[in-house]
Amino acid sequence: MSNIFGKLFSITTFGESHGPAIGVIIDGCPAGLAIDEGFIQAELDRRKPGQSRITTQRKEEDTFKILSGVFEGKSTGTPIAMVIENQDQRSKDYSHIAETFRPSHADYTYDAKYGNRDYRGGGRSSARETAARVAAGAIAKMLLKNVGIEIQAFVSQVGEIKAPHYTELDLSKTEDNIVRCPDHATAEKMIALIDQVRLDRDTIGGIVTGVIRNAPVGLGEPVFDKLHADLGKAMLSINAVKGFEYGSGFEGIRLRGSQHNDEFYNEGGKIKTKTNFSGGIQGGISNGEDIYFNVAFKPVATIMQDQQTVNKDGSEVTVSGKGRHDPCVVPRAVPIVEAMAALVLADFVLRAKNSKV
Amino acid sequence: MSNIFGKLFSITTFGESHGPAIGVIIDGCPAGLAIDEGFIQAELDRRKPGQSRITTQRKEEDTFKILSGVFEGKSTGTPIAMVIENQDQRSKDYSHIAETFRPSHADYTYDAKYGNRDYRGGGRSSARETAARVAAGAIAKMLLKNVGIEIQAFVSQVGEIKAPHYTELDLSKTEDNIVRCPDHATAEKMIALIDQVRLDRDTIGGIVTGVIRNAPVGLGEPVFDKLHADLGKAMLSINAVKGFEYGSGFEGIRLRGSQHNDEFYNEGGKIKTKTNFSGGIQGGISNGEDIYFNVAFKPVATIMQDQQTVNKDGSEVTVSGKGRHDPCVVPRAVPIVEAMAALVLADFVLRAKNSKV
Amino acid sequence: MSNIFGKLFSITTFGESHGPAIGVIIDGCPAGLAIDEGFIQAELDRRKPGQSRITTQRKEEDTFKILSGVFEGKSTGTPIAMVIENQDQRSKDYSHIAETFRPSHADYTYDAKYGNRDYRGGGRSSARETAARVAAGAIAKMLLKNVGIEIQAFVSQVGEIKAPHYTELDLSKTEDNIVRCPDHATAEKMIALIDQVRLDRDTIGGIVTGVIRNAPVGLGEPVFDKLHADLGKAMLSINAVKGFEYGSGFEGIRLRGSQHNDEFYNEGGKIKTKTNFSGGIQGGISNGEDIYFNVAFKPVATIMQDQQTVNKDGSEVTVSGKGRHDPCVVPRAVPIVEAMAALVLADFVLRAKNSKV
Amino acid sequence: MSNIFGKLFSITTFGESHGPAIGVIIDGCPAGLAIDEGFIQAELDRRKPGQSRITTQRKEEDTFKILSGVFEGKSTGTPIAMVIENQDQRSKDYSHIAETFRPSHADYTYDAKYGNRDYRGGGRSSARETAARVAAGAIAKMLLKNVGIEIQAFVSQVGEIKAPHYTELDLSKTEDNIVRCPDHATAEKMIALIDQVRLDRDTIGGIVTGVIRNAPVGLGEPVFDKLHADLGKAMLSINAVKGFEYGSGFEGIRLRGSQHNDEFYNEGGKIKTKTNFSGGIQGGISNGEDIYFNVAFKPVATIMQDQQTVNKDGSEVTVSGKGRHDPCVVPRAVPIVEAMAALVLADFVLRAKNSKV
Repeated sequence: MSNIFGKLFSITTFGESHGPAIGVIIDGCPAGLAIDEGFIQAELDRRKPGQSRITTQRKEEDTFKILSGVFEGKSTGTPIAMVIENQDQRSKDYSHIAETFRPSHADYTYDAKYGNRDYRGGGRSSARETAARVAAGAIAKMLLKNVGIEIQAFVSQVGEIKAPHYTELDLSKTEDNIVRCPDHATAEKMIALIDQVRLDRDTIGGIVTGVIRNAPVGLGEPVFDKLHADLGKAMLSINAVKGFEYGSGFEGIRLRGSQHNDEFYNEGGKIKTKTNFSGGIQGGISNGEDIYFNVAFKPVATIMQDQQTVNKDGSEVTVSGKGRHDPCVVPRAVPIVEAMAALVLADFVLRAKNSKV
Repeated sequence: MSNIFGKLFSITTFGESHGPAIGVIIDGCPAGLAIDEGFIQAELDRRKPGQSRITTQRKEEDTFKILSGVFEGKSTGTPIAMVIENQDQRSKDYSHIAETFRPSHADYTYDAKYGNRDYRGGGRSSARETAARVAAGAIAKMLLKNVGIEIQAFVSQVGEIKAPHYTELDLSKTEDNIVRCPDHATAEKMIALIDQVRLDRDTIGGIVTGVIRNAPVGLGEPVFDKLHADLGKAMLSINAVKGFEYGSGFEGIRLRGSQHNDEFYNEGGKIKTKTNFSGGIQGGISNGEDIYFNVAFKPVATIMQDQQTVNKDGSEVTVSGKGRHDPCVVPRAVPIVEAMAALVLADFVLRAKNSKV
Repeated sequence: MSNIFGKLFSITTFGESHGPAIGVIIDGCPAGLAIDEGFIQAELDRRKPGQSRITTQRKEEDTFKILSGVFEGKSTGTPIAMVIENQDQRSKDYSHIAETFRPSHADYTYDAKYGNRDYRGGGRSSARETAARVAAGAIAKMLLKNVGIEIQAFVSQVGEIKAPHYTELDLSKTEDNIVRCPDHATAEKMIALIDQVRLDRDTIGGIVTGVIRNAPVGLGEPVFDKLHADLGKAMLSINAVKGFEYGSGFEGIRLRGSQHNDEFYNEGGKIKTKTNFSGGIQGGISNGEDIYFNVAFKPVATIMQDQQTVNKDGSEVTVSGKGRHDPCVVPRAVPIVEAMAALVLADFVLRAKNSKV
Repeated sequence: MSNIFGKLFSITTFGESHGPAIGVIIDGCPAGLAIDEGFIQAELDRRKPGQSRITTQRKEEDTFKILSGVFEGKSTGTPIAMVIENQDQRSKDYSHIAETFRPSHADYTYDAKYGNRDYRGGGRSSARETAARVAAGAIAKMLLKNVGIEIQAFVSQVGEIKAPHYTELDLSKTEDNIVRCPDHATAEKMIALIDQVRLDRDTIGGIVTGVIRNAPVGLGEPVFDKLHADLGKAMLSINAVKGFEYGSGFEGIRLRGSQHNDEFYNEGGKIKTKTNFSGGIQGGISNGEDIYFNVAFKPVATIMQDQQTVNKDGSEVTVSGKGRHDPCVVPRAVPIVEAMAALVLADFVLRAKNSKV
């Protein structure tokens, strides 16, 4: 029940951080879609650890393999299963996790809920699970590309350092630097901050902004499955996410209706809005304007400092992070945000086929 | 597909603003729950129009009737159907909506998606649909009360006016004033602002904060159906909502991990956290602390001023709000936020029965 | 969970036999479908009690009302809610059901499962629930008519009396007699048998055969949601059904593969099969031939004779049927079988839109 | 959408006959269940090809590997992924399938529905997919064993040769012979018939009977998800199945209600029925008696004889079976029927936790 996402273009992910493999099954991808395996790998590479000095230095290649659902380069309409073997399974000392509940991690809640848990590397609660989402999201992107929809995300804030609004940026420059902020000057500051935080043996939060272009009018279902409600759930399901807003978001509450309303006009036969506080979604349904949203990521919980906590038996102990961890998660979160957005959009593209007779 | 919410405690809502009736079916309520009809009506009354001078002056009694699923005062395990007849169906002039796309309303997107729409009073996109949610949420609250869970929401911001953090407030005072802010001084300012906005023939946004107390450890499913992900979707599915955050939320991104982590301690055999930036949820699962979250509502789209827009045929026209509308939606949104939170929690309480063998 | 049927064209039914009303919500009907209310009523009339001397003599008009989802005669894409008020609610003596578990009824199992049950007239377990299915099925039929699909059912067996194979019958004559068997001679015998059974204060079982014509190639999903698997579940979910078979069915097991295989041939560019043991479905997917199936109904459990049974408190008692009941359920089951078939087909017609990119 | 089965204990299968692997993910298995890998392999061995002279002589070992969800021998509550690599992938000549639609196979319908299909060995439509069900079913059986429920199936008919009713048989002898019929004399005749059919280069159908013992009262959901409706769908979703009946089934229609009703009596405080025409299910809910049902399998479509058919381009051609195929599918279908029954029961055991507050 809890590992399935999407109604028509649906994915099921599985796997623990240090088990034999993680993976995903896509159920509902229409037949006849050309599957570009190189693109899937490229997306996984954007997420993989060890890609730059501001991410974890742990090396994992995240090589995927398609087990089913693709024949002679095209989807067949049957489930597409992809697995990524875990290479980094060397025998480590996990005693500090096995018995100890790390602050702001899922150790305690998993233990209380399930009793039996794979504590190695965080097990199922590890962000490693998101690699499966990125692989599936790459296929969703191929489906969306067919209908012209483009999805791009970038880092818009790290700690207090903010990039300009997306409409003032050239998003094609996002991959030009290691923090994935398309504004060069802001990126430099962000990188410097993350460097400092790492030296402090600490971590810092940030925001990833997502932008969806060329979505046709009519995606999203009114009432519960509003386009932004499903986008919100998708983003909030990513590890470390604390908030989601779209369009004017939390800032919009300060405005008057007369300022906030997006007036319609006719641009050569096409209905457009003069402003876009709506974030491209009205009544839960896309209106043809850019869809944009912000996703807030908390500072990573694993820090290289001593912290007080308790053991499984209730005794109070001190714990400190071990190994190689991200001082800031947002640079590697960019492809994850894109993947989740792509999965949501792909689902709604399929669902929209039945809006009218 | 789009009008069903919840996996085990699931609701299906139906109805248009000016059709014969709106209503809801609850499928999955366990048998044997005592159903307090007076409480359901009281909850509906907290949402109904015309309840104070700062809400719409439209009068609707929102009297509900149970059609099934309750026998001799208790749930039977079969679907509980409730209907609310629409009393305010007098023949009005809807020509300004029938042909014209009101700015930041759902007129255009519904029209593009469905072709055929009931435009009277906004039809299905009317916030009137939320009365059905409140009725169902009242029953969810009864189920939660059985296991000790309490849900309270209040208005924490209107425009620029903010209430103190919930931990500094006495939430039992929420219903003491018409704006539903438990801090008397702040409430006065909020009411004054809304009064002014109404005189300006304008509208203003705000924030509703929700607090869930006494949730047991272990609610929520890791990965996609994280407790906060489902709460987020629930809130984002409410009309006019633009953002959701829980715990430290968007502010948390500015903190360092060493500040943000919630250290565990042992309080007489019970595991507690010293701080609660996690908002009571870790790894998507409740940890026994208070769960709290913010929901951002945009300024209501209907304003009593002329706005430019286009007609169905593409011609540019001027439109102005008619009738009686809310200058600010948050006071009436409080019971809706509570209802949606109750529905999510009830679902997870049922789902948690199968975490372990 | 248990009162929802269908994935895209989905229905939720509610209501007890002697509560205020029963009803159904259709969620997923595409917008723009012309809704013929007269046809819905006509379908309900085919199912209603008291329609002939061989059905129960209880009179209920089963008048339905649409509460939502239809505007100016067409579906709007929003949920279509329909209610049928229960007219026959006069205060009866139900003590023989309240405390006593009638043989082969659902009294005991409901009581054990739920504790609290509405025993009046069987409550939720009453076949009255199927009226809601028939109303929804009528709308599914309208959707199917748009794409040319026709569904017809008829009584093919009562007790030992069997009609010829459907291919030898003119199904347009089904409604010409009260038993709904299109073969006049067989119908006479069936009616005589049912008359005799009623005089014996007993009941008898039968078979309803369903035939679906003009289904396009490609409906049904391989693996779990095979077209015949969903048809089977739909039929088995009808009260009193004990078996389902399609195509060659149980008889087919006696044949050799060389006899049973349906050879393909090319009929003017169209691929056809010479025989149709497959029943129009291969690999779970329609192949363009007639789809046909049999549904076995047991003898009605309520008989006008004394039977031994036990009370809620475990004491052994004698019980006898009261009131007016059907001596044989199949004549009234014909529209129910058609309705469930229509709901399954409508669902697959919508699902098939996404088979290919 | 089409490759997921079950609501709480749910499985998703994937894989083609001649792709790299087939497999299954179980989502919803509660934590803490001891997983016996030897038992899973033993169940797979009961299904595997080449196990006796009356099955296909193709050799495949069907060795499975658990990729996730099990830690230190117990389930963790996270998805349990299992894969079975396809060993028999040698390069064969599939041209007779690639272009030709074999009679009564899924070649034509898959081709029409999807356009792009993996034709090698039948691809997704191969009965090889059922190995994944058997692996998952083995884990469902472990869950059921915990609550005392036992599931056994056996071959009760091959062609015209029928075994006595299950109540007259000792089901523990089912595995004593290669046809899996617990009645020695009948088994001999069945084996002789299948031998003859194979020599005739033909195939024959049969019936598998399933028996579920010790199911508690209260499993199954009334209305659509009746216990027998979900069992029926489960069985009908198995390749080659043409019919399903439970309890008195198709024979029951010939009886009078006075013969067919199962009278209740009190056996030392336990409510029992004197007869069991109901098949252990009343109103869709288990009543504590044995649940029993029949599943009809058609003769295997692949025969070693020339048959007329058409090519993809519409030209008429002759096709004949190649390779090693089963002359009768029922002996190997026994563990598949048990697996599907176990999956249905496991789902309802979890669902029943929420029948009452």
